[in-house]
Amino acid sequence: MYPQLETEAEALEKATARALLPGAISKPASEAGKAPRMNKWKRRLHRHVPVFQWLPLYSTEWGIDDFIAGITLGLTIIPESMACALLAGLPARYGLCSAFIGPLIYMVFGSIDKVIIGPTSLVALVSVQFTVGRPIEFAFLLTFLSGIVQIIMGTMRMGFIFEFISMPVIKAFSSATAILVIESQLKVLLGIKYLVAGLMNSVGMLSSRIEESNMADLIMGVCAIVFLLLLELLDRVANNEKRNKILRIFCRYLSTSRNTLIVLIAAIVSFIWIQKCGQVPYALSKNALSTLPNFTVPSFHIETAERNYSIWEVLKELNIGIIVIPIVGILTNISIGKLTPKGLVDTNQELLTVGLCNMFGSCVQAMPSSGAFTRYAISTACGLRTPMANLYLGIIVLLALSYLSPYFNYIPEATLAAILICSIFTLLDFKLPMRLWRDSKRDFATWLLCFCVSVLFGVEVGLFVSIVVTALHLLFLWARPEIRVKIEQLDEMQYIRVTPSNGIYFPAINYLRERVLKACEQADFRITVVIDGQRISGMDYTAAQGISKLSSDLCRQADASSSTLLILFRFPEHLQRLIDNTDNLVFCESENKVKEFLTQESLRNGYINLKEHIRASIDLGYKIDID
Amino acid sequence: MYPQLETEAEALEKATARALLPGAISKPASEAGKAPRMNKWKRRLHRHVPVFQWLPLYSTEWGIDDFIAGITLGLTIIPESMACALLAGLPARYGLCSAFIGPLIYMVFGSIDKVIIGPTSLVALVSVQFTVGRPIEFAFLLTFLSGIVQIIMGTMRMGFIFEFISMPVIKAFSSATAILVIESQLKVLLGIKYLVAGLMNSVGMLSSRIEESNMADLIMGVCAIVFLLLLELLDRVANNEKRNKILRIFCRYLSTSRNTLIVLIAAIVSFIWIQKCGQVPYALSKNALSTLPNFTVPSFHIETAERNYSIWEVLKELNIGIIVIPIVGILTNISIGKLTPKGLVDTNQELLTVGLCNMFGSCVQAMPSSGAFTRYAISTACGLRTPMANLYLGIIVLLALSYLSPYFNYIPEATLAAILICSIFTLLDFKLPMRLWRDSKRDFATWLLCFCVSVLFGVEVGLFVSIVVTALHLLFLWARPEIRVKIEQLDEMQYIRVTPSNGIYFPAINYLRERVLKACEQADFRITVVIDGQRISGMDYTAAQGISKLSSDLCRQADASSSTLLILFRFPEHLQRLIDNTDNLVFCESENKVKEFLTQESLRNGYINLKEHIRASIDLGYKIDID
Repeated sequence: MYPQLETEAEALEKATARALLPGAISKPASEAGKAPRMNKWKRRLHRHVPVFQWLPLYSTEWGIDDFIAGITLGLTIIPESMACALLAGLPARYGLCSAFIGPLIYMVFGSIDKVIIGPTSLVALVSVQFTVGRPIEFAFLLTFLSGIVQIIMGTMRMGFIFEFISMPVIKAFSSATAILVIESQLKVLLGIKYLVAGLMNSVGMLSSRIEESNMADLIMGVCAIVFLLLLELLDRVANNEKRNKILRIFCRYLSTSRNTLIVLIAAIVSFIWIQKCGQVPYALSKNALSTLPNFTVPSFHIETAERNYSIWEVLKELNIGIIVIPIVGILTNISIGKLTPKGLVDTNQELLTVGLCNMFGSCVQAMPSSGAFTRYAISTACGLRTPMANLYLGIIVLLALSYLSPYFNYIPEATLAAILICSIFTLLDFKLPMRLWRDSKRDFATWLLCFCVSVLFGVEVGLFVSIVVTALHLLFLWARPEIRVKIEQLDEMQYIRVTPSNGIYFPAINYLRERVLKACEQADFRITVVIDGQRISGMDYTAAQGISKLSSDLCRQADASSSTLLILFRFPEHLQRLIDNTDNLVFCESENKVKEFLTQESLRNGYINLKEHIRASIDLGYKIDID
Repeated sequence: MYPQLETEAEALEKATARALLPGAISKPASEAGKAPRMNKWKRRLHRHVPVFQWLPLYSTEWGIDDFIAGITLGLTIIPESMACALLAGLPARYGLCSAFIGPLIYMVFGSIDKVIIGPTSLVALVSVQFTVGRPIEFAFLLTFLSGIVQIIMGTMRMGFIFEFISMPVIKAFSSATAILVIESQLKVLLGIKYLVAGLMNSVGMLSSRIEESNMADLIMGVCAIVFLLLLELLDRVANNEKRNKILRIFCRYLSTSRNTLIVLIAAIVSFIWIQKCGQVPYALSKNALSTLPNFTVPSFHIETAERNYSIWEVLKELNIGIIVIPIVGILTNISIGKLTPKGLVDTNQELLTVGLCNMFGSCVQAMPSSGAFTRYAISTACGLRTPMANLYLGIIVLLALSYLSPYFNYIPEATLAAILICSIFTLLDFKLPMRLWRDSKRDFATWLLCFCVSVLFGVEVGLFVSIVVTALHLLFLWARPEIRVKIEQLDEMQYIRVTPSNGIYFPAINYLRERVLKACEQADFRITVVIDGQRISGMDYTAAQGISKLSSDLCRQADASSSTLLILFRFPEHLQRLIDNTDNLVFCESENKVKEFLTQESLRNGYINLKEHIRASIDLGYKIDID
């Protein structure tokens, strides 16, 4: 894998090394080289089907922890996914349809332990823009196509592109999502119904129709939020409770199951109210069907009462959604992966897995799904050990779907909105921009750009614009690299030393030439130029030609009598070949050789007298080599 | 301008330096600082209106040279621009309309001496795609809009983006243009008339209709080509002729005016033929008008017999042409500028100047114009001194337009095609790809991509695709920088030394972490990691966070008992602030401090026994500092 590491290690005096550092390089090289070959297929299996990594090691202790975590997560994901379904403009039960097949697939193929696949507010927020006002089948087709696109991206190993999303962008994007979700739920809390796109339109509409707001919805929502916040505080109580273990566990489970509790309480209130009065004064979530979903591949030919859509019309209506949703969907998983102890994410494997989850999910009428930060926090708090918890979670969701579906009609919409608002608060992070403002203005600018564009024009636009802007900045760094231009002295002979910090590629070469020529102009073109190639990691043909041209420039600008010498110092050999030779261009490898050239030049130009030079140098204690 | 240069220069022992290098840094710093301030406005004037640079210095000698060059260039540009007009699908006289106002404006504002503005086959080839089959006014509007776009780009200082076009791309693009122009002129040589887009379609059409070809056109064309090639050879004769000066000058002028000669001869032949037989058996170039063009701002509302176009419809029809033409148009100027002795091009000034040429050009019914390599070659050969030659050239073109216009109808189309074919041959360069194949495979791949895409899908597509691909490669270099990971030894204590070669930005940080963790894994996480920041030119917040995470990774991966120390060596202070401190992360500035940390770590981990270590070190002649 790392040949230079091995050879370096071998080249060291091993005996001494081992005596000083027992076990530091303990594996003999032969064994280390043999082991990976033998296990190549096994390692590939482990990588692509991670269940084989942990299943053989599975123990009862892990089983108990996973069972508890699975149940807790199940009770969290049920109300949360119903809320997300509403956010995506779908009946609540479709949230549950999205929350059982994903986890089961992720258990087998998922590479990040604490990711729980299911509907998320982020994906719901983005996908609603592509499905709003269209038949419900569009949502399932979007899920299917997102899955396909993710699988294609994973197969083509395009996970690479996600490395071009910087942390300020992800953070700004998440905070903007939180703000947009909260804004979108305000109207539900107020019991006002409308459908408009864009934050500005929505805020305008909300403020103009504020008098239509329904007090009952608002009371229900605010009560739910207060309840949720109080129960969230209980978690802190649990952490401070050191003595009574049972009280601590009780507080913790009460806190983690707060979403389920509030849904239960609100549904019971509605149920009793309807039994007594026939109807409730607030809006209830409506669900069309109440059986388990059928397993059918979604049809590309959508027929509704008003209009028939052919496959091309569907693709045209979904537009860039089939690219945006897969990318947005995978982003959270990658971000979560970076938070886990392992720290490094196999993005291509994640793409394949989430792609499978979406593809099969769409067959049971799921909306586009991904991991979620809220579920990551809970799975960490519950002490989840392995993805086996997904199994219990999936079973709980399936049970809810088969037996509780009819009762979903009793859940008030305001309660679900309250759950969404409380859970999305974790994504709001304004500490980071303050830190960035202090320490890195450029990163702050990126954050601000992404945040503002996301809030004003939608998160997908914000993401796209920020990726482009950060990429352009990286390109700019190639065009204006750090180049140190200094007059230095070697044996009292002056020369201009040019040290480019990076590789010199075509966008930078004119800048380099300009810098050198300006420096030479200040010195009247009578001073040798040394370009130090030590830090040049790479160079292309255009840049190499530019350096040849620079030497011609120096020739031309100098007096007719003398031409300025250009010394290319410590240039790698493969780069030397690219540079056309001119009269006043020399390569050299050592400081001594540079000194020799400088001496020759000074003699030739008559700046120094050889005899005087030798005398002066001997006086100063230098050693002079003259051929 | 270059503060570090000044201060460095001052910091040197000036007396010694001056004695050794008289005049090297001759200007006192105060004077150097004062002079630019005084001349600020003058310098700005010189930069933006370069005529003020050379006009005050103008001499009779220059005047004579410029006059001769101007006349020669005028005789070249007349047939060439007519041929370009035919290539752009316009009557021949519109080529001349484009060839007098541009040079006159460029004389005042142009920053590159040897650029002669006028129609070029490249711009004609690209613009015909946006104007073909549409009313003739579209061409003038395209010129106007191109000018506006160029002026906007110049004002916004967007000349910068042209640095992202590498030399292999420009060369491939030019060669592809040559091939496309030659192919497009073959049908004229054969006397076949059709209009199809794309090389493949055109070749298909040509081969299917080859039997329709007109022998008379072919004979006329081939004769013209032979004549032109013979007269081109005469230039070599002139170069070899050392004795007879008059013969040399005669041969040279015969050679440079070959285009005008063949047009004259062919027109006379046609004239006599028509006088005798009433008609000629080959196609003649047709011209609608025969007066000087009026000066009118082009109307945005185009009315034809079939259809009226509103301003929006015009913009929609011209499509990306109004972006592509300005970019393609300026490319040649920049390339020529790089060939001139000055070597550096003020791209923004060029954009403004060519923009003005196009804007005013469109008012006299000009097609989009730019500099051309053929004219550059001739202006160099004729010994042009200053842009004053443009004046004589403009006058000649105007004279031709006012008095010769009626006679343009006698010029055979095949002759103009022959001129275009012979002049475009200079752009064909297949030596470069061979050189690139040998020395730089990546540049060769860029060349090949640009060439193939340009030939198959049009030069503008080829240019766009190659710019994107080369930019993506530059981005890739940020994602996978050169990182040296080596096990090194300091005082017999081993450590992993990680030396990133460039700045570490967000796309590279996961790669860096992976490399370090894999190296640590090989060493069982019992060896200190030193990241050498000497060559790190920059870092952003994401990368800084990644380094903090790396230290946590190292903590976590190591045994519970010992954690791996991460030493950040020689990191610039402003980067240190970005990195969150963790327990096992330390900064240090000197090799001595690194040694100290390594010793502490080795002692703490029990790899070395203090007493033994001291004894061993003393035996080996090391000096040990222990606090």
